[in-house]
Amino acid sequence: MTTDTIEAPAVSAGSQKYLLDSWYCAGWSKDLTDKPIGITICDTYLVLFRGKDGAASAMDGRCPHRFAPLDKGRVDGDTLACPYHGLVFNKTGECILNPHGAGIIPPRARLKSYPVIEKLGTIWVWMGNPDTVSSDQLPNLDWMTSRDYSVVWGYLKVDANYQLVMDNLLDLTHAPFLHAETVGGKPEDLVGLTHEWKTSPGPKLHSNYFLANQIHPSPQIQGLVGDIPGDLRANMTWRPASILDLDIRYSPPGGPETDGLHIPSVHFLAPETEHTTHYYYALARNVEISNTEIDEITAVMVKTAFADEDEPMIRACQELMGTTDLMSLNPAILQTDAAGVQARRILKKQILNA
Amino acid sequence: MTTDTIEAPAVSAGSQKYLLDSWYCAGWSKDLTDKPIGITICDTYLVLFRGKDGAASAMDGRCPHRFAPLDKGRVDGDTLACPYHGLVFNKTGECILNPHGAGIIPPRARLKSYPVIEKLGTIWVWMGNPDTVSSDQLPNLDWMTSRDYSVVWGYLKVDANYQLVMDNLLDLTHAPFLHAETVGGKPEDLVGLTHEWKTSPGPKLHSNYFLANQIHPSPQIQGLVGDIPGDLRANMTWRPASILDLDIRYSPPGGPETDGLHIPSVHFLAPETEHTTHYYYALARNVEISNTEIDEITAVMVKTAFADEDEPMIRACQELMGTTDLMSLNPAILQTDAAGVQARRILKKQILNA
Amino acid sequence: MTTDTIEAPAVSAGSQKYLLDSWYCAGWSKDLTDKPIGITICDTYLVLFRGKDGAASAMDGRCPHRFAPLDKGRVDGDTLACPYHGLVFNKTGECILNPHGAGIIPPRARLKSYPVIEKLGTIWVWMGNPDTVSSDQLPNLDWMTSRDYSVVWGYLKVDANYQLVMDNLLDLTHAPFLHAETVGGKPEDLVGLTHEWKTSPGPKLHSNYFLANQIHPSPQIQGLVGDIPGDLRANMTWRPASILDLDIRYSPPGGPETDGLHIPSVHFLAPETEHTTHYYYALARNVEISNTEIDEITAVMVKTAFADEDEPMIRACQELMGTTDLMSLNPAILQTDAAGVQARRILKKQILNA
Repeated sequence: MTTDTIEAPAVSAGSQKYLLDSWYCAGWSKDLTDKPIGITICDTYLVLFRGKDGAASAMDGRCPHRFAPLDKGRVDGDTLACPYHGLVFNKTGECILNPHGAGIIPPRARLKSYPVIEKLGTIWVWMGNPDTVSSDQLPNLDWMTSRDYSVVWGYLKVDANYQLVMDNLLDLTHAPFLHAETVGGKPEDLVGLTHEWKTSPGPKLHSNYFLANQIHPSPQIQGLVGDIPGDLRANMTWRPASILDLDIRYSPPGGPETDGLHIPSVHFLAPETEHTTHYYYALARNVEISNTEIDEITAVMVKTAFADEDEPMIRACQELMGTTDLMSLNPAILQTDAAGVQARRILKKQILNA
Repeated sequence: MTTDTIEAPAVSAGSQKYLLDSWYCAGWSKDLTDKPIGITICDTYLVLFRGKDGAASAMDGRCPHRFAPLDKGRVDGDTLACPYHGLVFNKTGECILNPHGAGIIPPRARLKSYPVIEKLGTIWVWMGNPDTVSSDQLPNLDWMTSRDYSVVWGYLKVDANYQLVMDNLLDLTHAPFLHAETVGGKPEDLVGLTHEWKTSPGPKLHSNYFLANQIHPSPQIQGLVGDIPGDLRANMTWRPASILDLDIRYSPPGGPETDGLHIPSVHFLAPETEHTTHYYYALARNVEISNTEIDEITAVMVKTAFADEDEPMIRACQELMGTTDLMSLNPAILQTDAAGVQARRILKKQILNA
Repeated sequence: MTTDTIEAPAVSAGSQKYLLDSWYCAGWSKDLTDKPIGITICDTYLVLFRGKDGAASAMDGRCPHRFAPLDKGRVDGDTLACPYHGLVFNKTGECILNPHGAGIIPPRARLKSYPVIEKLGTIWVWMGNPDTVSSDQLPNLDWMTSRDYSVVWGYLKVDANYQLVMDNLLDLTHAPFLHAETVGGKPEDLVGLTHEWKTSPGPKLHSNYFLANQIHPSPQIQGLVGDIPGDLRANMTWRPASILDLDIRYSPPGGPETDGLHIPSVHFLAPETEHTTHYYYALARNVEISNTEIDEITAVMVKTAFADEDEPMIRACQELMGTTDLMSLNPAILQTDAAGVQARRILKKQILNA
């Protein structure tokens, strides 16, 4: 029995479409067990599972023999057996058993494996060169695993290019138009809203909104904090390739922003294909943290906003664009697009330099 | 704030596939309100709405900012607001409000608008050069808005190239085979049928059928006029690009054709894409015009003939052709195809000359 | 009225994808009546019907006039009328009636016809050059029409290239993994299984499995023959392009293989398109031949194994491959793939030599 470095062919030819040297969210840690799951990221079909040692692993999801879907296979200890002819692979992708005849294992019977880490309650997969792995890219967000917060977790498949979802998140001025019935408030409530954006090392990109001394525009939030005025901050941070977090704070007028209501959220995007996006989101609050009724209301409201308002709009734009390359259509650019345009530039540069 | 002549990119590259300098039916006047509707004609996505002045207007249906579907937007007076970020456009396609920040309106924030007229109870959109607009192309059909007729209105999406629908309408000899159970009569009833076709200025093309002194082949018509013999005339007229009307008369043998039963109909086709066609039809009668029961029977019979007999057949031909270009397949041409072939020639010539 | 040798254009350009000089199963004889059926084989749409003389015939399924589906037409005696405009064709594809006007029949109004034979209760169509027709290619399988066997007949559409189905059938080692719950037995039951393959003139390819002196691994078979040990033989034979039969025998240890249980089956594949396959199968037994309850149990078990286990797996492999050309992906080749690889080589050679 022998293995060598010949790898199974990858589905992906995505080096120009995607930033491969990046972490992508492939699901929540709590959902990964010894039952393998299949997921396509950057056009590459992966199988993920948790072995008996508790560690998560990710490998090419197509058996190198007949390209059977390994997520239909069976995990035994730290190994995974193909559901079609029973070849067994270890967690590094090495074939360790051919159950047939003399059991000869050909060199090509080898899966490519991918670096995986778990952080922020999230499974992260590195799609590019393993030698360039760096965990610096990931944010530190204590609330995701803190007992002082109640967290609602969600997932959404978006039928559009991931950069259109990034655009949506980096320009929150769509909220009073698209989300007027749910989380957005009304256009007239937002008079006085200021917006700033900047970059910082990492690179990171910050798109920050501020509304001073005003009753919170959302009736739901008023239910939590009352109808007294406050300072509303919504700070969005983007990290390449498509890791976003939004920090919403509603604090006493002129007081420290860390006082009062805190509603942080993450928006982890993983391109499935050029035309489809995995959208993992989690949203938390630092009040009423044991109130499961509010958890449920929050889960429904967020799902409505994302799945019934954002997703159909982004999908419709994608369909009407007829391409995944927004800029090739010479769109009208507004001042409010600045952060999104800058993120696209940073991403494009990183892809070209990879 | 400024606008200039830079236009949003059009989806269409259809100049060779379609005759753009032509009126296309985009719906019935009675159905257009201040609720915008989206419709694709000649591969171009349009938004139509009726402003507070009552006039219909048509513009590119994709917002030039992020290509959001403007038919999901809101009409206010004579303006239309984008549902995604709230840019407001007037009826000429000019952006008149950017509700964000300093409200700067970039030159590209401009929609192309299309000439619209209402005639024959129909919304007509001119897809080509506005300088070449001419209403000469449209027929005069008094019955469509006359109180002496009862009109049944309908719509059908056909999953086939519009020229295949034209072929179907310009060769009614398919009726006794495809419509034997509904409107077509039996092949043996049509012995003695004569057919003539000719062109006339416009250009127009006429495909006329005549059957002398015979009991009407359709049991339904017999119910209206009795089982006494008559002269049956069915005169189809085609105008480019795809405007057809059919004048059916059943008059006393040898008498003036304007006596007796008159069943006129229109068949307004608008190519949605190369492979799909909007088919608007209306059919009227000059007898029993207050009898709503006959209206209902007529509506069902016509819908059955068009939607359950014609459409599946035309769609099947389209699928089996594997192309939208019939002539490229070297079909067998029968004498009865003459009118359809001539219409295709006229249309091809006009498209090439455009 | 005249005909000549100009033929309607064929849909197919499949000379490199398929072995056209070959018989393909187009259905079971028992199912073909005077009601025409449409079927696509090797990308070519065919119409099949049985005329009043009882003989089956196959012709291009698209009318040469407007490419209407002739399987929607009407058989009258030995002729077939187009459902759209009523052109009538005889069984050699000659148009013998144009019911319109002067009734002129243009030379192009001619269908290509295909050689058909009926053997083994099966309709066979020759897709290639009629001058090369040879019935040598078909097996002799007396059981298919013998009174000493009870036969279960089935059909399955597989959403994958036909060669992937051949691979599945020529390597039965997938059975204990994919069919463990139905017909496959357990991996541990198959210790001692030997496999041999060889070619013989025709060409034919044989893939034979042998398991000596063991209780039959399938509980269902144990129900038929008891839990006493026997010698199990499973001999698969492949003939180009895609004609397979499997001869399973379970006989007394060391005794003649023709004693005991005999479960022969056929697996007749016809490529519909490059991505889809018609799979006709029949399976028989020489015991309990009048027991209709066992017929039903057998039909369900076989359908479960083929439709719910094999088909989804082959389809998933096809989807994950992203191509129909397995070898272009450099798969890992196991010893157990030898027969399948050899069949692919023979087939490729015959296609290139055609």
